[in-house]
Amino acid sequence: MNVLIVYAHPQPHSLNGALKAFAVQHLEQAGHHVEVSDLYAMKWKAQLDVDDSLDAPVGDVFNPSADSKHAFEQGRQSADITAEQAKLRWADAVIFQFPLWWFSMPAIMKGWIDRVYACGFAYGVGEHSDTHWGDRYGEGSLTGKRAMLLVTAGGWESHYSPRGINGPIDDILFPIQHGMLFYPGFEVLPPLVIYRTSRVDEARFATHCETLAQRLDTLWQTPPLPFRQQNGGDYTIPALTLRPDIAPGESGLAIHQQRKE
Amino acid sequence: MNVLIVYAHPQPHSLNGALKAFAVQHLEQAGHHVEVSDLYAMKWKAQLDVDDSLDAPVGDVFNPSADSKHAFEQGRQSADITAEQAKLRWADAVIFQFPLWWFSMPAIMKGWIDRVYACGFAYGVGEHSDTHWGDRYGEGSLTGKRAMLLVTAGGWESHYSPRGINGPIDDILFPIQHGMLFYPGFEVLPPLVIYRTSRVDEARFATHCETLAQRLDTLWQTPPLPFRQQNGGDYTIPALTLRPDIAPGESGLAIHQQRKE
Repeated sequence: MNVLIVYAHPQPHSLNGALKAFAVQHLEQAGHHVEVSDLYAMKWKAQLDVDDSLDAPVGDVFNPSADSKHAFEQGRQSADITAEQAKLRWADAVIFQFPLWWFSMPAIMKGWIDRVYACGFAYGVGEHSDTHWGDRYGEGSLTGKRAMLLVTAGGWESHYSPRGINGPIDDILFPIQHGMLFYPGFEVLPPLVIYRTSRVDEARFATHCETLAQRLDTLWQTPPLPFRQQNGGDYTIPALTLRPDIAPGESGLAIHQQRKE
Repeated sequence: MNVLIVYAHPQPHSLNGALKAFAVQHLEQAGHHVEVSDLYAMKWKAQLDVDDSLDAPVGDVFNPSADSKHAFEQGRQSADITAEQAKLRWADAVIFQFPLWWFSMPAIMKGWIDRVYACGFAYGVGEHSDTHWGDRYGEGSLTGKRAMLLVTAGGWESHYSPRGINGPIDDILFPIQHGMLFYPGFEVLPPLVIYRTSRVDEARFATHCETLAQRLDTLWQTPPLPFRQQNGGDYTIPALTLRPDIAPGESGLAIHQQRKE
């Protein structure tokens, strides 16, 4: 299988660098093909702007969506964007690896999402009608591919537990896992989060590698997070609210996952 | 009063540009002093890296936290970082204005957070003991200042409602409002979110400006979101989980706000 690792850490000689090297070696030893988009090493341009299209703005002034759509459809995107989209098409699974900075991804990786996720590619896909609100949240260009977050955090696991002060890790990662991965069609695997990174000695590193190896070995067997498909009947259209008879009276992020009955 | 607007949109002739211009004029007419950090116009460097310190790494290799702390404490930070920290110290209120891209802020603004929020300034502040886990979540360098998000979104308000498919807007913004603003000490005001941006005609724009004016006129009177202080007794230390007798049996993001009894 083909695995893309989108990786953001500014220092190769780091816990993240060591985990990335381990993942590449482990996957290759298992016979997989691996590509790494090492965003710092590539000096990835983080800010989405008018230079992302080779053409002048289609309207009077630059419009992020309209010009992204034009450039994507006409083959006039900046070459770095086109190259990353090709890697996504090639990949069967994508691992996004980053240190959790301020409860989100580093800016350079957010800039990968902002720019590679072109209009017509990752959003603005499919028909809008009374029963179908675009190909998104379970449908879209990346359908059939799997994605997984590999995240390091300085804080303790309890700080990210269901009643932890930082918020439950599932909720903190919801904008990424549901909004950036499930939205364009990925099946999203449970994240692998490594806590208390300043306390990782050799023994703990070996344990983390074992866990990572197990996750990599089961990339194609692990059940994805059971996010609800937008157009599968669970949501009213166009309000896109969960049907009143599903999880009645509840709200919050957890209702967007199917439950075991 | 002194108001800093941290602003991220790539096109001045946009809804965001017009709202920003309105806010500046409205605040100045009311006698406030306004500074704008227009991140695209400033060509803000988004990626945190070794160049953020004028000194060589303090250890064998670059370490984001350790080198940020050294540069901050020794006055050896990159000049653009120092300038933004000075604006934060000067400000009585800070407005973060941006279009919601992929359920978060644009990369260039995330890069402002990643870089300006130095170790020793926005995190790693204060003593750690059995009763006090650093000056954060309600304490810290930015205590006494107010912050507010001014966000535009393409989707409908119902899509971000309590049962909307994107997740409730309060939950989507939690990593920003709680994790990036309350953490270093800001009092966080309810956000002003403008939905369906592609449908903003002149009449709707006038309505949005009225709402914005009202929010700006009450910047110092609006009650902040009642996030719980970390060291105020509601959380166990060091696990930093909410005390079992508070919101017993509940979990999720909403438990981190005090409720009216």
